[in-house]
Amino acid sequence: MNWENNVRKVVPYVAGEQPKDQNVIKLNTNECPYPPAPGVEAVLHDFDCDILRKYPDPDVSDLVSVLAKRHGLSDSQVFVGVGSDDVLSMSFLTFFNSGKPILFPDITYSFYDVWADLYRIPYECQPLDENFCIRKEDYFKENGGIVIANPNAPTGVMADVAVLEEIIRANPDSVVIIDEAYVDFGGQSCVPLIGKYENLLVVQTFSKSRSMAGMRIGYAMGNEKLIKYLNDVKFSFNSYTMNATAIAAGVASVEDEQYFQETVAKVVSTRERIKKELSRLDFVFTDSKTNFIFAAHKRVPAQEIFDALRANQIYVRHWNKPRIANRMRISIGTDEEMDTVIRFLEEYLKDK
Amino acid sequence: MNWENNVRKVVPYVAGEQPKDQNVIKLNTNECPYPPAPGVEAVLHDFDCDILRKYPDPDVSDLVSVLAKRHGLSDSQVFVGVGSDDVLSMSFLTFFNSGKPILFPDITYSFYDVWADLYRIPYECQPLDENFCIRKEDYFKENGGIVIANPNAPTGVMADVAVLEEIIRANPDSVVIIDEAYVDFGGQSCVPLIGKYENLLVVQTFSKSRSMAGMRIGYAMGNEKLIKYLNDVKFSFNSYTMNATAIAAGVASVEDEQYFQETVAKVVSTRERIKKELSRLDFVFTDSKTNFIFAAHKRVPAQEIFDALRANQIYVRHWNKPRIANRMRISIGTDEEMDTVIRFLEEYLKDK
Repeated sequence: MNWENNVRKVVPYVAGEQPKDQNVIKLNTNECPYPPAPGVEAVLHDFDCDILRKYPDPDVSDLVSVLAKRHGLSDSQVFVGVGSDDVLSMSFLTFFNSGKPILFPDITYSFYDVWADLYRIPYECQPLDENFCIRKEDYFKENGGIVIANPNAPTGVMADVAVLEEIIRANPDSVVIIDEAYVDFGGQSCVPLIGKYENLLVVQTFSKSRSMAGMRIGYAMGNEKLIKYLNDVKFSFNSYTMNATAIAAGVASVEDEQYFQETVAKVVSTRERIKKELSRLDFVFTDSKTNFIFAAHKRVPAQEIFDALRANQIYVRHWNKPRIANRMRISIGTDEEMDTVIRFLEEYLKDK
Repeated sequence: MNWENNVRKVVPYVAGEQPKDQNVIKLNTNECPYPPAPGVEAVLHDFDCDILRKYPDPDVSDLVSVLAKRHGLSDSQVFVGVGSDDVLSMSFLTFFNSGKPILFPDITYSFYDVWADLYRIPYECQPLDENFCIRKEDYFKENGGIVIANPNAPTGVMADVAVLEEIIRANPDSVVIIDEAYVDFGGQSCVPLIGKYENLLVVQTFSKSRSMAGMRIGYAMGNEKLIKYLNDVKFSFNSYTMNATAIAAGVASVEDEQYFQETVAKVVSTRERIKKELSRLDFVFTDSKTNFIFAAHKRVPAQEIFDALRANQIYVRHWNKPRIANRMRISIGTDEEMDTVIRFLEEYLKDK
């Protein structure tokens, strides 16, 4: 039995835990603490299940259309997938096909190197500076593609769009992907540059600011040639990636702009308040423009705080990796959840 | 602007049309004419949308568990994906990694060569015999993997499990995928062989016999090592491919075995009746064990009949390909829909 010799062996991405215990304060995967727009529940409540016997719309036209309208683009400039992970993975497969190394920061979303390994794409990580900022010069060398999360995760740091524009402009032979999973919480989007640079692909998600991680919806925006290539690969993989409920629920979410703005404003307001509390408790952190805070304590190692929080049913994220081992990523929950966290930390840090 | 040089260029799969016109009699994509189990609608009607803010269960445990139980397997022997296309595509990427050509019939599901091209997997098509049957000897040569649809599409022909077992046994160095998308309509499953051959992967779907094409659920069954490798690749691609509604709806479907059996029996009974009607109208066809009939007329070319049906809002499938250009694939609809088709054909063929 030698079939195992021919298997593609990979080291899979490890996502944050999804505990089944409902009593956990879950601040480990940057989920939104508020429910999706009320229209989402209405859509499912009234869903005509007879249509499920048919294949869904392979072009996801209804959802593409509302997204295009919201971002001031045409339908041919939008691609929808099963969460931004699906969209990004498919973009790696489609655009990073030169054999030359692709470039991304050393500290960033840890799925980038996993996708590169999966598709045998060579890559070179570019070190962020001591403030976790991108050094644009690192992206002016020959490459097979570039991917930058902005704001970055898990650092929360936002790069200036002008800096990103320089990188995009300097790389006409590469596709530059800007992963804007967290942009709605105060970041600046690169979407306005789409008309100017045909090598720019911007990716966003419903998982954070739209409270729909459980529905798996992400999307890419770019010039229509890019979107066409992406669709060709998608249609070579699975004609129907988006199920009928996800399409209908996604449309309902986009149609309620007011709820979206209010939800984002609540998260941002909690974040800014918690920054002050954490400062008071001797934490240091970057100026997050996301729905999480990337914090280190001045005296107590992150691993110890992480363990103490966990023992008290508060889950945050911690990586035992170079440069960030002394940091924790704390997602922004409800005000009540965050108050519980702060009370716990206050007590826990009292004698340290 | 040379970024286009580095794009992975592919010739995508072309799925059967999904017309928006509700008046079409749609017999072109092998969908089930009956709705999903009533439990599916109940689940969506009462769905607690607050949970959508969280990521879904990455292991899809609830659905894996009911499927394992139904098929007499353990949970570690089942993998769930976004339709069997997702499962098959991921299996190609995972298991067909040797550089040697993979083997599949010349007339079969036309996504196989598309996936092979997408992932740069060499392949060699093996001609079916003049009755559209597999010749087992064709699969005894060196190869990088084997994929066989059983019953086959678009032919409807079922290979004997004993023949498939010979092929599986003769290829211990390759993974052999048996694609059983249509098996519930009277085929014999290879699932009982799973305990015997660790190189066997069996793939099934909710899209046909479970009337849930719109929900995108497919699954693979095999020994736990195969399933582990498949999960590793899935977790290197997208941690959460199945959204929360698909998981819940899938469980509801599997839990209603009686509805499932009744639905399948209705389709089979219509199919057998329509076979007689088509014979009477001078059609010839294979002995389909699926939810479609692959038919040629004794006098009138398939293209002409296809065009006439289409002009009358009846959509079937036709391929302008060698060996099958004179055949049409007609999905089994409701008795009423099929009666309309037969009445039309009767009238249309009268003077031919």
